[in-house]
Amino acid sequence: MAIQRPTYQRPDPSVSGNARTRVAITLGDPNGIGPEVLLKSLHDPHIAPSIAPVVVGSAHVLRQHADVLGYSDLTIHTVDAMPDTLPDEGVTVWDVTDGATPAVHFGEITAEGGALAMQAVEAAVDACLDGRADAMVTAPISKDAIAQAGYTVPGHTEFIAQRTNSPRPMMMMVAGQLRVGLVTAHIPIAKVADALTEAVIGTKLEVLSAALQRDFGIAEPHIAVLGLNPHAGDGGVLGMEEETIIAPALERARANGIQVSGPLPADGYFATQLNSGYDAVLAMYHDQGLVPFKALAFDRGVNFTAGLPIVRTSPDHGTAYGIAGKGMALPGSMESALEVAAFTAQHRQATAAPAQ
Amino acid sequence: MAIQRPTYQRPDPSVSGNARTRVAITLGDPNGIGPEVLLKSLHDPHIAPSIAPVVVGSAHVLRQHADVLGYSDLTIHTVDAMPDTLPDEGVTVWDVTDGATPAVHFGEITAEGGALAMQAVEAAVDACLDGRADAMVTAPISKDAIAQAGYTVPGHTEFIAQRTNSPRPMMMMVAGQLRVGLVTAHIPIAKVADALTEAVIGTKLEVLSAALQRDFGIAEPHIAVLGLNPHAGDGGVLGMEEETIIAPALERARANGIQVSGPLPADGYFATQLNSGYDAVLAMYHDQGLVPFKALAFDRGVNFTAGLPIVRTSPDHGTAYGIAGKGMALPGSMESALEVAAFTAQHRQATAAPAQ
Repeated sequence: MAIQRPTYQRPDPSVSGNARTRVAITLGDPNGIGPEVLLKSLHDPHIAPSIAPVVVGSAHVLRQHADVLGYSDLTIHTVDAMPDTLPDEGVTVWDVTDGATPAVHFGEITAEGGALAMQAVEAAVDACLDGRADAMVTAPISKDAIAQAGYTVPGHTEFIAQRTNSPRPMMMMVAGQLRVGLVTAHIPIAKVADALTEAVIGTKLEVLSAALQRDFGIAEPHIAVLGLNPHAGDGGVLGMEEETIIAPALERARANGIQVSGPLPADGYFATQLNSGYDAVLAMYHDQGLVPFKALAFDRGVNFTAGLPIVRTSPDHGTAYGIAGKGMALPGSMESALEVAAFTAQHRQATAAPAQ
Repeated sequence: MAIQRPTYQRPDPSVSGNARTRVAITLGDPNGIGPEVLLKSLHDPHIAPSIAPVVVGSAHVLRQHADVLGYSDLTIHTVDAMPDTLPDEGVTVWDVTDGATPAVHFGEITAEGGALAMQAVEAAVDACLDGRADAMVTAPISKDAIAQAGYTVPGHTEFIAQRTNSPRPMMMMVAGQLRVGLVTAHIPIAKVADALTEAVIGTKLEVLSAALQRDFGIAEPHIAVLGLNPHAGDGGVLGMEEETIIAPALERARANGIQVSGPLPADGYFATQLNSGYDAVLAMYHDQGLVPFKALAFDRGVNFTAGLPIVRTSPDHGTAYGIAGKGMALPGSMESALEVAAFTAQHRQATAAPAQ
């Protein structure tokens, strides 16, 4: 059953207080749909009450996108640092361009666009590390554009992990109660089996379990772990990794106090998962987790990076150059990324707060 | 978005006529949920009008299941061959047990159960080959029970393919407009990449395309083909099989007049497929196709065997011994299997009929 619009409950207000969560939202590639979905999201009345959003990037670029969308009346407040308070209306932009006025070329890969996108990410990470922001949300960047601008990382996750000295970042997908972690991600199918080890599965379970507790407010999380092979190996007939690698990893995790079940057949799990009692599912490879996630989450999927000292989410789509500047982009995933960022930041603060 | 209850349109009645489609439904393992979902399905008023259903197996077994379900008033007509006409009410059973009264042991693997299940399959296949039935639907069997009864095949599909001399049977999953074919199925993930060849992809595209035309009434089918690797290899960075194997196979298929697109990233495809213009999607391996299929089809998924001279469908679940005899089994998949059997048999007859 597809997830419509999930709701994310804030933690107990007596613990977290009612202050709005300060979210730094990086503009993303100026030539893609990032600024568009961001502007549309900030117009959503459901978003505003609990979030104090600050766009990080270029006011000049945001204005160009606003004009294309017909948001000509939008007030854009420009500031030169992450602010403490926000005006009652309009959008606040922390401009990191040092007075430059970057051009927008819809649908084009440019070094200037890549540089702007990454300057915004650097500023937002630092604001989160300094405590000036409670969370960051990243609009999509272009891998090719940032390479042209001289950045050698494959994407946001690796860059933010490096900048925050985080050795164990982990990609998690979130849509309401559906939470999917991956053991392996961007590697060929032919290399997946060799990449699975007891140690790597153990590490992912630790990071995932900690995130569920600290960021999602689940005191005793229960994690479902999928098998690698069809029917989870069917007793060894369709593969041995379930018995030789996954099951021992689960035994060790249990010994370390992590509640896990599995290895489970992936097709059965996703056929019924919304009725299941699990708080998250750990998939063995990219398509095993992301294909059913995107099928179920529709346009509400959020990428959450577990294992960081800061809170970071992003929408689950890319720059979508093909529809950039046309006003067609759906903001659902960006809206949900803002909500999950606020939700997890509030839970993390509540967890860190001293007991009453 | 999940598929609720799909509807299957019959072909033009001026071609197919209004005769009910004669469907032989094998009882399945007597100790599993097969007889239960079958009885529940035949009570569904949506099913009856277009189908003349005949249960193949044992009247004695069916009566025991009916009693458990509280269907004590159900009239069971016993016949000793596939009949030409059916009484107006009740359920007709073609009893293949030669007067035996097999016991039902809910949830147990028995040789007697395996033997009965396979006798029914043999009879139904022969009735389809002889033209006494228009289609067959198979309730689930137990691989272990049929092995105890001396059958060495892994399942229905292989057995029916052998008995009908079909060298190219192909598993397809169907739920409304969502149709998924698999290039590889029951092999370990570590062996998938090596099992992909231009030739096997080409064969699957031929069988799938022919089934869409003949069985689903789609004159010019357009097939989406998924990549093997994450992001369909991302231009070679995440794997080369898209460029070295899949793309050449698609070129060859196009040269043979088959409309294909791909290789496409699997996560993007299933995120949007219900809005796409494709008539079917070809997945490279079991979980890539079946995980999103089951997530989207919920309890309405149907297994259709393409590439046979007869029409055969089945529900997409197993014997579910754990809930056998408890009245809890959901009949949605069996109902849909009956509907798809009738739908495809009617289309096949319409396609085979001489032009008016």
